Amino acid sequence: MNSRHENVTPFYVMDIVKEAAKYDDAIHFEIGQPDLLPSPKVSKAIKDAVDDGHFGYTDSRGLKALRDKVVEHYKKEYAVEIAPEQVFMTPGSSGAFMVAYMLTLDSGARLALSDPSYPCYKNFAYLLAIEPQFIPVSEKSLFKVTPRELALVEADVFQISSPSNPIGNLYSADELAALSTYCSEAGITMISDELYHGLVYEGRAHSALEFGDDAIVINGFSKYYCMPGMRLGWMIVPKKWVKKTEAIVQNLFISAPTLSQYAGLEAFDDAHLKAVRRVFKERRDYLYGELKELFDIPVKPEGAFYIWADISRYSDDSLIFAQELLEEAHIAVTPGFDFGSFQTKRYVRFAYAREMRHLKEGVRRLKAYLLRYDRVVSK
Amino acid sequence: MNSRHENVTPFYVMDIVKEAAKYDDAIHFEIGQPDLLPSPKVSKAIKDAVDDGHFGYTDSRGLKALRDKVVEHYKKEYAVEIAPEQVFMTPGSSGAFMVAYMLTLDSGARLALSDPSYPCYKNFAYLLAIEPQFIPVSEKSLFKVTPRELALVEADVFQISSPSNPIGNLYSADELAALSTYCSEAGITMISDELYHGLVYEGRAHSALEFGDDAIVINGFSKYYCMPGMRLGWMIVPKKWVKKTEAIVQNLFISAPTLSQYAGLEAFDDAHLKAVRRVFKERRDYLYGELKELFDIPVKPEGAFYIWADISRYSDDSLIFAQELLEEAHIAVTPGFDFGSFQTKRYVRFAYAREMRHLKEGVRRLKAYLLRYDRVVSK
Repeated sequence: MNSRHENVTPFYVMDIVKEAAKYDDAIHFEIGQPDLLPSPKVSKAIKDAVDDGHFGYTDSRGLKALRDKVVEHYKKEYAVEIAPEQVFMTPGSSGAFMVAYMLTLDSGARLALSDPSYPCYKNFAYLLAIEPQFIPVSEKSLFKVTPRELALVEADVFQISSPSNPIGNLYSADELAALSTYCSEAGITMISDELYHGLVYEGRAHSALEFGDDAIVINGFSKYYCMPGMRLGWMIVPKKWVKKTEAIVQNLFISAPTLSQYAGLEAFDDAHLKAVRRVFKERRDYLYGELKELFDIPVKPEGAFYIWADISRYSDDSLIFAQELLEEAHIAVTPGFDFGSFQTKRYVRFAYAREMRHLKEGVRRLKAYLLRYDRVVSK
Repeated sequence: MNSRHENVTPFYVMDIVKEAAKYDDAIHFEIGQPDLLPSPKVSKAIKDAVDDGHFGYTDSRGLKALRDKVVEHYKKEYAVEIAPEQVFMTPGSSGAFMVAYMLTLDSGARLALSDPSYPCYKNFAYLLAIEPQFIPVSEKSLFKVTPRELALVEADVFQISSPSNPIGNLYSADELAALSTYCSEAGITMISDELYHGLVYEGRAHSALEFGDDAIVINGFSKYYCMPGMRLGWMIVPKKWVKKTEAIVQNLFISAPTLSQYAGLEAFDDAHLKAVRRVFKERRDYLYGELKELFDIPVKPEGAFYIWADISRYSDDSLIFAQELLEEAHIAVTPGFDFGSFQTKRYVRFAYAREMRHLKEGVRRLKAYLLRYDRVVSK
């Protein structure tokens, strides 16, 4: 029998974060959360909820008014009709993943996911004593999974994310439709992580629900809505699973944090969100423009706030590269190894979740630091 | 293979809650959360944290200042020395249970718990594909487990709670010491649910950590501190498990809700907490005094805010009894079946988590309603 926690990997970036905290002048390319604040309406909503004494639990599914907002959001953004009964508010999107995996991954079931991908996917599986099935992806497919590759693994559930952490790549409507059709035909449940929707700078993010109503969709307020510490996510489940999901969330959480739910009621603030997107796009344009002169960057990120940079012209081990970069130039990045094991020693992840001035100082320092490698740059 | 969610029971009380919501004049004995507000200092702390822009994640373990407060609390309340590294802040105590069970219940491991007990214990086990080992308890042992009974089941982990939901019974120092010694010798990990500590009206609540440092202790801010909707709990793990726990909480939660943690910093407000305890004691004294004239009550509750009432002089099925009581007298109680299957058809749980006037109206209406049963009362 597998040990639940023996395979669970701590995040290597946490060591980087701790080490970086020692330097007053550290440049933070490692941070995976927005530095921007949520809409001022959110702050007011929290204070009002405190004044109104909203310290009790909510309905396990979440405030009805908030689930209605989510329903409205899907109609407006994706022209998709869902029922409020299908929506569950969860403690972060993390909570939603745990519910989705408990719902779909019975003992012995198989979860397929790309390598690299967000590390918690595989770790949630390990914690449920499930062995993940990794689909290696590389620059050849722009790090996307296709039905052909999915067909090569045994799968009951397929975890997808678009735009993805750590790549920032976006699946097109055609690509998502093909995967959705394949999953339906093969009896595979698709779990679609749409947490970075909204933070999209080229093309358009599509919800898995546009291509079928049997996917589980997960999103939340931590990225685009700039409320990571509020720990509020949501999930949309197919109608057939509403009852089971309710029993699971009742037991697992009682309910999502109440003040966060009142905050969520005011978080769909279009003007504010548009400004958030504009800030991140400007940073993306700048940082991608600079980094592509220094590294091979196989995917120009279309969404999220990450750049997946191939550092192999400087080093054959991105963990060591990241450690040295921090020690010597006080620049923190996330080693690729945090996201999987397929060719991840070649990559580091840069996040652009700090203000332009900070990014510019980082680039300046990075350029100076990389000069030391000039002797080995030959390609 | 077991289905994770097939055995998971929804809470029957939720149907009662939904039904009760239809009656403007409903009496709420079913509610398992305090109606009192937290300290005014808590409200101020939340607003200040909003003004300070604390919308980001915290360290996965929780704010260091808050973990220090917890350390201090154990020193002051129990004369127990723990290290801040052993303390983890979690999304509710619910989150702490999930971590504790993932940590200790590998596939095939056995969880022993009393029947009846808090329903989430067994449901967490089912969700991890673990088969719980039930220890039936009755009025003969005042619903407590002894080493002799624990020895009758196969166990790797023993879940205990004191004061308990739904009984309100309290384990004495001697009883806890005996269980702690037995568990240590038998290689069983004790998980001690101490969520109702503080709400104790006779004797003194003891922490499992007073009797050994190898227990996992779980507590939180939902009951005594009157912040259920803030979803903030904590757990204390033995030093040998600190690293593993950190990897699990990083993956499972990222971190506990940030504003809730700032709230927690101000929640240990002795004057306020003393007033909270006084209010609940007054209610306990009143409601127990009245209900013991109407039902057999095997345990005078020493803590929490529940009374476990034997309704068998009126009915042989407490679920039907509860439904009829709601329909006919608009009085909501929790059927015993929510807490297990051993003799639970004989019991309902009354919560005294509403103001005295509400309790008094409930008692008045209950007395009138029970007159209809006079003809069958023969014992």
